[in-house]
Amino acid sequence: MRKFLLLILFSLYLFTGCAQSTTTGPTLNLMPVPGQLTMQDGKFRIADSFKLAVTGQPHQRLFKGATRFLRRLDDKTGSFLTQNQITSADNDANAPLVINVKRPGKVMLHEDESYTLTVSPQKVNLTAETDLGALHGLETLLQLVEADETGYYMPAIHITDKPRFPWRGLLMDVGRHFMPMEVIKRNLDGMAAVKMNVLHLHLSEDQGFPIESKVFPKLHQLGSNGNYFTQEEIKAIIKYADDRGIRVVPEFDMPGHATAWFVGHPELASAPGPYTIERRWGIMDPVMDPTKETTYKFLDAFLKEMTALFPDAYFHIGGDENNGKQWKANAQIQAYMKTNNIKNQEELHAMFNERILKILTKYGKKMVGWDEILQPGITKSIVIQSWRGKKYLYEAVSKGYQAMLSNGYYIDLVQNTEQHYLNDPLPEENQKQLTPEQQKLILGGEATMWSELVTPETVDSRVWPRTAAIAERLWSPGSVKDVADMYRRLDRVSLELEYVGLTHEKNYPMMLRRLANGQDITALKTFTDVIEPIKEYTRHQQGTTYYAYSPYTLIADAARPDAKVARNFRNLAKEFVTNPTPKVTNEITYWLNLWQNNHAGLQAIIRQAPALKEIETLSADLAKVSQIGLEAVNALKANKANLSEEWYNSSIATMQAAKKQRGKTELVVLPGIEALIKKAAGK
Amino acid sequence: MRKFLLLILFSLYLFTGCAQSTTTGPTLNLMPVPGQLTMQDGKFRIADSFKLAVTGQPHQRLFKGATRFLRRLDDKTGSFLTQNQITSADNDANAPLVINVKRPGKVMLHEDESYTLTVSPQKVNLTAETDLGALHGLETLLQLVEADETGYYMPAIHITDKPRFPWRGLLMDVGRHFMPMEVIKRNLDGMAAVKMNVLHLHLSEDQGFPIESKVFPKLHQLGSNGNYFTQEEIKAIIKYADDRGIRVVPEFDMPGHATAWFVGHPELASAPGPYTIERRWGIMDPVMDPTKETTYKFLDAFLKEMTALFPDAYFHIGGDENNGKQWKANAQIQAYMKTNNIKNQEELHAMFNERILKILTKYGKKMVGWDEILQPGITKSIVIQSWRGKKYLYEAVSKGYQAMLSNGYYIDLVQNTEQHYLNDPLPEENQKQLTPEQQKLILGGEATMWSELVTPETVDSRVWPRTAAIAERLWSPGSVKDVADMYRRLDRVSLELEYVGLTHEKNYPMMLRRLANGQDITALKTFTDVIEPIKEYTRHQQGTTYYAYSPYTLIADAARPDAKVARNFRNLAKEFVTNPTPKVTNEITYWLNLWQNNHAGLQAIIRQAPALKEIETLSADLAKVSQIGLEAVNALKANKANLSEEWYNSSIATMQAAKKQRGKTELVVLPGIEALIKKAAGK
Repeated sequence: MRKFLLLILFSLYLFTGCAQSTTTGPTLNLMPVPGQLTMQDGKFRIADSFKLAVTGQPHQRLFKGATRFLRRLDDKTGSFLTQNQITSADNDANAPLVINVKRPGKVMLHEDESYTLTVSPQKVNLTAETDLGALHGLETLLQLVEADETGYYMPAIHITDKPRFPWRGLLMDVGRHFMPMEVIKRNLDGMAAVKMNVLHLHLSEDQGFPIESKVFPKLHQLGSNGNYFTQEEIKAIIKYADDRGIRVVPEFDMPGHATAWFVGHPELASAPGPYTIERRWGIMDPVMDPTKETTYKFLDAFLKEMTALFPDAYFHIGGDENNGKQWKANAQIQAYMKTNNIKNQEELHAMFNERILKILTKYGKKMVGWDEILQPGITKSIVIQSWRGKKYLYEAVSKGYQAMLSNGYYIDLVQNTEQHYLNDPLPEENQKQLTPEQQKLILGGEATMWSELVTPETVDSRVWPRTAAIAERLWSPGSVKDVADMYRRLDRVSLELEYVGLTHEKNYPMMLRRLANGQDITALKTFTDVIEPIKEYTRHQQGTTYYAYSPYTLIADAARPDAKVARNFRNLAKEFVTNPTPKVTNEITYWLNLWQNNHAGLQAIIRQAPALKEIETLSADLAKVSQIGLEAVNALKANKANLSEEWYNSSIATMQAAKKQRGKTELVVLPGIEALIKKAAGK
Repeated sequence: MRKFLLLILFSLYLFTGCAQSTTTGPTLNLMPVPGQLTMQDGKFRIADSFKLAVTGQPHQRLFKGATRFLRRLDDKTGSFLTQNQITSADNDANAPLVINVKRPGKVMLHEDESYTLTVSPQKVNLTAETDLGALHGLETLLQLVEADETGYYMPAIHITDKPRFPWRGLLMDVGRHFMPMEVIKRNLDGMAAVKMNVLHLHLSEDQGFPIESKVFPKLHQLGSNGNYFTQEEIKAIIKYADDRGIRVVPEFDMPGHATAWFVGHPELASAPGPYTIERRWGIMDPVMDPTKETTYKFLDAFLKEMTALFPDAYFHIGGDENNGKQWKANAQIQAYMKTNNIKNQEELHAMFNERILKILTKYGKKMVGWDEILQPGITKSIVIQSWRGKKYLYEAVSKGYQAMLSNGYYIDLVQNTEQHYLNDPLPEENQKQLTPEQQKLILGGEATMWSELVTPETVDSRVWPRTAAIAERLWSPGSVKDVADMYRRLDRVSLELEYVGLTHEKNYPMMLRRLANGQDITALKTFTDVIEPIKEYTRHQQGTTYYAYSPYTLIADAARPDAKVARNFRNLAKEFVTNPTPKVTNEITYWLNLWQNNHAGLQAIIRQAPALKEIETLSADLAKVSQIGLEAVNALKANKANLSEEWYNSSIATMQAAKKQRGKTELVVLPGIEALIKKAAGK
């Protein structure tokens, strides 16, 4: 029996070496990589007669989860499985797949999520302490499904798996751009597919108050333009999440980021108003008045309502980016500070947090906040979410607070997946500075989908597939960090994510069709495949003022982060300059030719598609640098790495010009071409 | 000033002749074609400074509609329009676009939906009796948006428009396969885009009871597997529809098609039960017992609840496909019939309808039913929906009933658009048999999206774009019936429909990616572009038993009705055999070469994608017939229409073999290739 025993430390080896180089073995596409894994001989074939059984003491959610599993399995394989709705009557221990669960799970922090999976040619056994672990195991099973000429199968395997961190979250900002139910639901499905377990809903902002309050209905009635979740919808979200083992943690950002509250309730603010819903982006002045008892009375009643609505033990109060201007300008607040010996804005803010903490504690909740809330003396029961830097994470846990990491997981910055993937909350080199107890206080992390520049149409493409790599970082052993293998599996998981309804792939050509104004998009897609939206928050700094209602349908919105074609080209160029095999040479020539010849076609499109004018010269530059790249490749093919200094200087100048960002996008094949230029000039 | 006055009778001429042949004029893409239209000189340019004003006395819904118009305009053109939420304060008569409305519209049958639109280079005026007409005018304006090298614009034009029929509906069957909120919403947006005004929700079936009843909660709790609309969601659908000028007409199918009712309430049935939710398709036996007073007591309470929930004046009771078996088998029912001198099933059914009619009348509703309910003596206030044939439509109106047409609009039969398009409820040749009063009783028609074989993933591709042609049939003058021009405009409106969120285009490659199991889909798409799912209900007759929970993710589900590439090829072949210009010859050679060479690539995909095995020989046949087509084209290019009888017979035999349906699909380029064969053999 061929068998590899895979220890945690060797998982990296399996996924980059062993499994891939085994010609008879399957190439696994699991993401996140399981903790322990042993390959075995044979294949479990999926037949129409496939059946599953649920045994033990699971929560009801497992029956629904098992039913979803069946439907996803038959949708993926085209099998006409005979089982329909799984119930407790489906408990035949002779079924091909038997799920056994010891006890009903509770969707809460630190619940047991482990599972063990054994696939043999005849039988699949999935066992778990709780149904939450079993749900994770079912996701693993679906990712194991492969095909050969005979049909679909799962390779024989033994997996023992559990998460490295207990808090693996995605923040959805539904305040800046509202995201309707279906966006939330499909993203919950995506999260479940990669074993994430916290949906952090950012539920109040300067630009919107997207949740119904029955106690203070003016909040959503005047603060949302009708874009809000009813409480029934919130309950449906929580149920949908719970069915998938996902907690929902609400955030009501206070005292800042609160303009939308003040439209209906200006009395809460530190300046008289009146207020309208903010349409610009940025850090705004409006902030709650922490010196008035009426503020706390209001917040007490409001939080009483909301803490009852959200069952999770944790409740997020935001607490970030309060610029303090309204406090400084308000004489009463200044007088209050003097009277109460409050020295500065930070102390006043800390006082506010302490009051909110008391309210939340009264209603049985633990407080979570952005790292600004870590003020001297605040109770140890709170959880710190580090967004300004990893040092705040370590500062918090060093002081005995639970904390989690979002710094480095800001997916709205449209950075490459690799950067997020290698952002370990607790890499080996940092472990020494913390005691084992302090290390345990690191709960995990959250990807943050801030929504200034995304709409329901584009949001999935900013979340996925990159967030799957963050999910792996938070689930898999820290030793799993091979970037190339992550990207290989990411391509595959991206398709799987599409099957649950996410639109990150399919909205791309749709947006190009709209931009091309009904024309054929071939040339436009060839171009857009090698650009990316400009990174971090630079889009706000290039002469366009974006508002909440601006169009987010332009080329920078259609272009996707971490453009795959460009990434592959950069790798290809690296390979070519060190080992120019005929295959690599042909491939690189193919791409450069394609891009060199693409501009005429794109120009023809632009003539009838004015919205694309902003990238016309960028497309011309792509053709130019591709021409240069071809000259370099041809020289190197002829074994000449001695193109003239003049050629080199002129090429680099062209390259520099091509680096200029246009249409809030940039060419991301340039590093690859630059490598060719340098090599060809003998640099 | 260049100006054509376009009378209704000449609209056909404009769209196929005049407008297209005018080199300086725009090619209009309007669908439905307006009643009257006059082209004028010049273009109204869309600038960021574009503003609109609303004047007169509109209903609130117009402000929301105008706001949506702005967002769709900027999404489409990439303009950064400065106006945000439109309110009654936006009433500056100097605005570039001024909408004037005489009175608030009511979303009801026979409401005024007319509008007048004048676009000049400086100004756009949209006037209407009601805001419903104004909403239609805004859709026309969006369809008028074109682009040239300078930017986006609307051509100067004068349009006077109103619908030919007042009832232009789409039936969504949410009972057989549940369709969640977002499916309903995006289809409402699609309907609004082509000026349809009735959403007919088929809300009960053997396979599901997808709506919450607070009076009889067992109906949805036991009858839906959790797939139901809450009443809050129903209200949200009604509001969403009302915002777009669309009525929502509910249908509760009774006494047959009612298994799902009986799961919770077996006492309603004519046989004792117990019942489970039906998972098969077809006409089932379970039927309500019309002889028990308790049935009516139940239905009275239920209809009281539902008539209050749905504000429309019309209420649909189904009434179709009662096979009568349970009635025949029930001794009590037979005895009742004898006692009450009820001669047959039809009379018993008529008695039931009369009782329901009384209940609905009591609750202020007018009854609608399928054409079976047209029984002698039934009151004239009901509306007959003709599904079994146009003769039932005429029979109904001849007898003085209002009626509408669905026969010929069964979009679940996956027929070509043309067939639906030319299906006029009242073509000229039939007008003589009806008096003008009787003609007026023809309210319009409804496309019916029965959902046996569709899921939320595929439903849009069965509804759109074909339903846009039905919408035109019901809106535009009967003289507008040029099929080629309909198809030209349909290509364009299909894209516009995509912009409102419909997935008919974008789910196609997604489904192919899943079928290809992660491999490149080029060869698969080339093949699938020229097949169609088999038509009418033949899919049920080819050895596969479909259940509600079967996979609908196979090739027949991915393939689309009225495949455009194939249709264009058939037209090309027609052109080639009569007028083989070099352009046509090159084009036809290109396609035949492509298909001839496609099989190897598709075979390679199939090797790793077992679900595609069912079309492997069909793909081989496509290659074979394409080879034959090339032989024919080459012979004809050489001016030889004299290929041998032997060649002809063998070619026709190959063609016959290729006609065999596989994977519940068929090659739809065959008629085109057959035309080439015949021509080349001098037939």
